[in-house]
Amino acid sequence: MKENMYYGAWPLRVIKIGGNVIDDEVKLSLFLKTFASVKGKKILVHGGGKLATRLAEQMGVQQQMVDGRRITDAETLKIVTMVYAGYINKNIVAQLQAFSCNAIGVTGADGNIIAAHKRVSAERDYGFVGDVDNVNSTFIQNILEQDVSVVFAPITHDNKGQLLNTNADTIAQEVAKALSKLYDVELIYTFEKKGVLQDVNDADSLIKRLDPTSYQRYRDKGVINAGMIPKLDNAFAALDAGVKKVVIGSSDELNEMISGLSGTTIVNE
Amino acid sequence: MKENMYYGAWPLRVIKIGGNVIDDEVKLSLFLKTFASVKGKKILVHGGGKLATRLAEQMGVQQQMVDGRRITDAETLKIVTMVYAGYINKNIVAQLQAFSCNAIGVTGADGNIIAAHKRVSAERDYGFVGDVDNVNSTFIQNILEQDVSVVFAPITHDNKGQLLNTNADTIAQEVAKALSKLYDVELIYTFEKKGVLQDVNDADSLIKRLDPTSYQRYRDKGVINAGMIPKLDNAFAALDAGVKKVVIGSSDELNEMISGLSGTTIVNE
Repeated sequence: MKENMYYGAWPLRVIKIGGNVIDDEVKLSLFLKTFASVKGKKILVHGGGKLATRLAEQMGVQQQMVDGRRITDAETLKIVTMVYAGYINKNIVAQLQAFSCNAIGVTGADGNIIAAHKRVSAERDYGFVGDVDNVNSTFIQNILEQDVSVVFAPITHDNKGQLLNTNADTIAQEVAKALSKLYDVELIYTFEKKGVLQDVNDADSLIKRLDPTSYQRYRDKGVINAGMIPKLDNAFAALDAGVKKVVIGSSDELNEMISGLSGTTIVNE
Repeated sequence: MKENMYYGAWPLRVIKIGGNVIDDEVKLSLFLKTFASVKGKKILVHGGGKLATRLAEQMGVQQQMVDGRRITDAETLKIVTMVYAGYINKNIVAQLQAFSCNAIGVTGADGNIIAAHKRVSAERDYGFVGDVDNVNSTFIQNILEQDVSVVFAPITHDNKGQLLNTNADTIAQEVAKALSKLYDVELIYTFEKKGVLQDVNDADSLIKRLDPTSYQRYRDKGVINAGMIPKLDNAFAALDAGVKKVVIGSSDELNEMISGLSGTTIVNE
């Protein structure tokens, strides 16, 4: 009963799992074991790794690329719905159950949790890609309050019957933002690197802490890799919207990230 | 508010949708529109139709048949998880949302709703096929009490991380039985025929009502088609376990079945 006594002290953690883990059965199992052991309420958000691409190849479905970006045509949407919401999501949930972590797998269509609209762009047609309009935090809260974790596949819907492919980082961020009205929320992004690095080729160049001032300084110096900038802008936007802390770090070090010993911690002050 | 006043008067309906509807986009949409309009709490259970077979062909996965039965090997399990729990389940949920019917799609792994074990048979190895051990009715109740319908894909799990392919009729029956401890439950099986027929080639030979006595009489006379006997034995088993009424009838006549104007009604007295 001691655990419950201290329950209120733990933040709600929204954890995004990297594609490199999804693609590796052994790594995935280790990650899920660690996730299952995380105290307090928690949400897992996953993408799809390379499985969707592999299935498309196997099915002989050509991936449409425009200006280097993959377009979600009807056939691709079908594939990502099968792979993300079906295969990956349900296998993650079954594994979490085996680690005694009760969990439910959802898309944004389920319980109308995430309503989105098809992306409108003058430059190109992205196809069935969704930009988030609204997160139904009450529905999520009701599940969390039963001590059940929520596992999100990166699919939303438009309330008109259309499923939409939505970036998993965005889902993690939007869910974290919405739930920050109800909980103290920590948003944790795991990926293949140890965090934000000063030199992408040097794992020891980890930036341990970023606030708006130091972020601006690193940017001015051109130290932070261009690919990280949208991720970090989003992290600060999440903090502005009420998320308490964002941590970016390695999938192999989830426990250490949670205890603040690993990864880059991003805060607003 | 009038609707809410009478709310308690409606039974919980567990409705199994036939494979013939899943395979037909127009029929499916009409069926879901009718389902959305059904008053009171409701659960939908779906199978997979021919989509899984078609995907297996497209992927070049051989379907293993033993004594005329399909074996769920690892690759087939992956396919049915993708098609049932991913593509079909999430498209049904998105369509229900469009018809203003809030719904959540689940497998038995989600919320640990249906625990099962891998079928043991001395005669043949069915592969990853699950026989149901337990239904977590409290978790389902909690969703239903939020006026959210539950949509079941016919996949369960063994609590050791293994997903299992499970017959959709069985899922409908087990869920109905478990929930009959908490609600007045009506179990409705829809398929391509108008109900239980005296002559399978004559749609007008519908048997409107079956109780144990008349069922025995029809069986003694050899009137009921052999293929219907396991279905009907299961229907009577569900009634014995507390389900109030079982109706078997056409997917095109869901409304009429609910008002008792169509299909075969099976009762215990």
